[in-house]
Amino acid sequence: MGRLVAGYGAATAADAIRARSLPPEFIEQETTGRDRPRGELTARLNAWHARLAASNPAADIENGERAGARLIVPGDAEWPTQLDQLGPSRPLGLWLRGAVDLRFSCLKSVALVGARSATAYGMHTAAEFGVGLGESGWTVVSGGAFGVDSAAHRGALTAGAPTVVVLACGVDICYPSSHDILFAKIRDQGVIVSECPPGTHPTRARFLIRNRLIAALSRGTVVVEAALRSGALNTATHALTLNRHLAAVPGPITSRLSDGCHRLLRERKAVCVTSPEEVIDLVGVMGDDLVSHPRTPAVARDRLNDVTKRVLDAVPTRKGAGPASIAVAAGVDLSVALSALGGLAAAGYIERSAGGWRLRKQATSYRKAPDSAALEPPHIDIDADPSQDPPFPDEDDLVRREHNLPAPDEVPQSSARPARQTNPNNTQLHQGTL
Amino acid sequence: MGRLVAGYGAATAADAIRARSLPPEFIEQETTGRDRPRGELTARLNAWHARLAASNPAADIENGERAGARLIVPGDAEWPTQLDQLGPSRPLGLWLRGAVDLRFSCLKSVALVGARSATAYGMHTAAEFGVGLGESGWTVVSGGAFGVDSAAHRGALTAGAPTVVVLACGVDICYPSSHDILFAKIRDQGVIVSECPPGTHPTRARFLIRNRLIAALSRGTVVVEAALRSGALNTATHALTLNRHLAAVPGPITSRLSDGCHRLLRERKAVCVTSPEEVIDLVGVMGDDLVSHPRTPAVARDRLNDVTKRVLDAVPTRKGAGPASIAVAAGVDLSVALSALGGLAAAGYIERSAGGWRLRKQATSYRKAPDSAALEPPHIDIDADPSQDPPFPDEDDLVRREHNLPAPDEVPQSSARPARQTNPNNTQLHQGTL
Repeated sequence: MGRLVAGYGAATAADAIRARSLPPEFIEQETTGRDRPRGELTARLNAWHARLAASNPAADIENGERAGARLIVPGDAEWPTQLDQLGPSRPLGLWLRGAVDLRFSCLKSVALVGARSATAYGMHTAAEFGVGLGESGWTVVSGGAFGVDSAAHRGALTAGAPTVVVLACGVDICYPSSHDILFAKIRDQGVIVSECPPGTHPTRARFLIRNRLIAALSRGTVVVEAALRSGALNTATHALTLNRHLAAVPGPITSRLSDGCHRLLRERKAVCVTSPEEVIDLVGVMGDDLVSHPRTPAVARDRLNDVTKRVLDAVPTRKGAGPASIAVAAGVDLSVALSALGGLAAAGYIERSAGGWRLRKQATSYRKAPDSAALEPPHIDIDADPSQDPPFPDEDDLVRREHNLPAPDEVPQSSARPARQTNPNNTQLHQGTL
Repeated sequence: MGRLVAGYGAATAADAIRARSLPPEFIEQETTGRDRPRGELTARLNAWHARLAASNPAADIENGERAGARLIVPGDAEWPTQLDQLGPSRPLGLWLRGAVDLRFSCLKSVALVGARSATAYGMHTAAEFGVGLGESGWTVVSGGAFGVDSAAHRGALTAGAPTVVVLACGVDICYPSSHDILFAKIRDQGVIVSECPPGTHPTRARFLIRNRLIAALSRGTVVVEAALRSGALNTATHALTLNRHLAAVPGPITSRLSDGCHRLLRERKAVCVTSPEEVIDLVGVMGDDLVSHPRTPAVARDRLNDVTKRVLDAVPTRKGAGPASIAVAAGVDLSVALSALGGLAAAGYIERSAGGWRLRKQATSYRKAPDSAALEPPHIDIDADPSQDPPFPDEDDLVRREHNLPAPDEVPQSSARPARQTNPNNTQLHQGTL
């Protein structure tokens, strides 16, 4: 049907079906060209004929107008041209009901899809993503169903952003019926879309057909939560077929409702996203919508250079040690160790004791001691490239506790020991609220 | 040092360091060949010299023997040759303490690594993976730390499988000390490994150096739970560098302790794994260790062919309809509709009413009615290729509820309506325990 209308126009196609007589070139193209038995085409024609005879376009238009809906067709100003990519399965027309312009709203749009029987985690995630995308100027497209769909729409509405619902029934029908208030809100702030004429009820097949529109309207599809057998995965397949972006939100492996997402990730069909920013990074315009990569938490130690860190690690906790044995433990030359020890002492990391150098129990953290500026490391060790794994492991914490190392200045204040006696810069003023 | 020992043997290397006189070809190769300032090499030599002078190999051997440890070097029968891939950073020797053979245990081994401050979810996952891998004949390699490490070891022990701990301290030292019982159990059933001589205490640097051994001993590394700044990510980097498999377990995006895993997935460095079987599928021998792909749940409807399903969807629930209007609604030829309706009636899906065909309220499910064998579809619609997305979405359930469609026979018995009156095959016998 799509090819018939594309080749001969809707009016000619309707006439041909009414007359049960397809254009000969079309028959040639469909049978010989596609190696399709002629009987199959005849059976299709009969089915189209019966359906056309049963239809009542004038009543559809009248019902649509009564419901406040408008009908758009390809070529109209409001027609979203990204649907052209559907080829012969592009819808012949769309019924719209709502305040905003469909084409304009979908210029920057993302589909958020997922399970109806979503968990609290899935609902939370969908709502957070809806808010985040909405606040960043992105339109959320979804199916208006229970669960993930509704949470995503509500999130977008909360952000004051337009949102698009694609229904599997007429735009005058509220399915599920308990979403009447949600749909009314969406009509005010977004738009409700369907390719079914007003009065059409949802069927299983229409949900599946509808899913291609959700994928085709948006720049990318995010599967928020889906079981292995889920309509959301059908939408995901459409997104892949259309070469649109596909992302999935991971969840606990103990939740069957994340199994579908994990399968998409495992098969590397979808990109793992954990925040709306990462979604925008994926679907956005290169350079315009880049997400800032999450920085690993920084600790004062990071600003020391490699050799100085090795020397610091070799300084004992309680009983002091001489520079020579520290140099051996650190595996560095004695002159290097002496220089590093001087710097570490100036920065307040270590102190002299009767037995030699030892860690200072309640040392000022590096950043808070302006007099240690001379220790400014020649080489900043913190990763400039955030795609690299962090050079320092969480062994840090354990070793620090074991060895009574100074806590980094980024740790929560509650776990930092106040350093009234030994702090030369009165930094306890900053901790006065403890 | 690795290159020196590899080129000249350990004894010659020790002599050269003791004499502070490196072989001229080695100096040439390290300075000119690697474009490295000669002063740097001299500083290194001085550091090695000082360390060698401070060492006491005879005491190390004696202490090791007292602790029941054995020392292996490359070429020994128990030496795991996969360590050779480390090149110059291959350990010069390994101290072992435990009942099992290291080389044999690590032939089929997987590293399970993760956060010390693991969540209950991470601990549960690590233990489950440890049990699952152990039961399948795989050895779990980890670092013996709090959190994920210990849960993984305990899981493997529970499965009666050997497990390998790689320590950052001497094998005679119990760090963390509260793991004394765990380590004793591992010595009985597995082996404790360290490249540090007995008596060596853990330092930050030794943890990082240790991590390369965990990655190099195993066929693949699984990051169970890790924050963005985590030692587990350091092990993951080693696994990637060595071209070993890398996998990550997803978790809730609301948990900071899954951020590291999600970053590995997002950057497509790691494969998403949700079960021990998927881990084995990744690291196992091709063909030997294939995991069976999770099947999507099957429902009776799946066995109907496409056209029959479309006709079934077009049959109304309460008020009956004639074959012609059903054919129009289904979009099929009348003769096709008639044939499908006959089959559906025989299978108990639909029944005749005064108004025509309608859905049978409490139809027997397809599989349980042997008399419907004639309806055996010519084309099984269930996906033969499980990598394909399922053809039917979870709209199924909703539509079924809406239309009172028969429940599939795979749904939990508790939600299936008993069908005493209409069931022709006494299948309620199977439900007798309800």
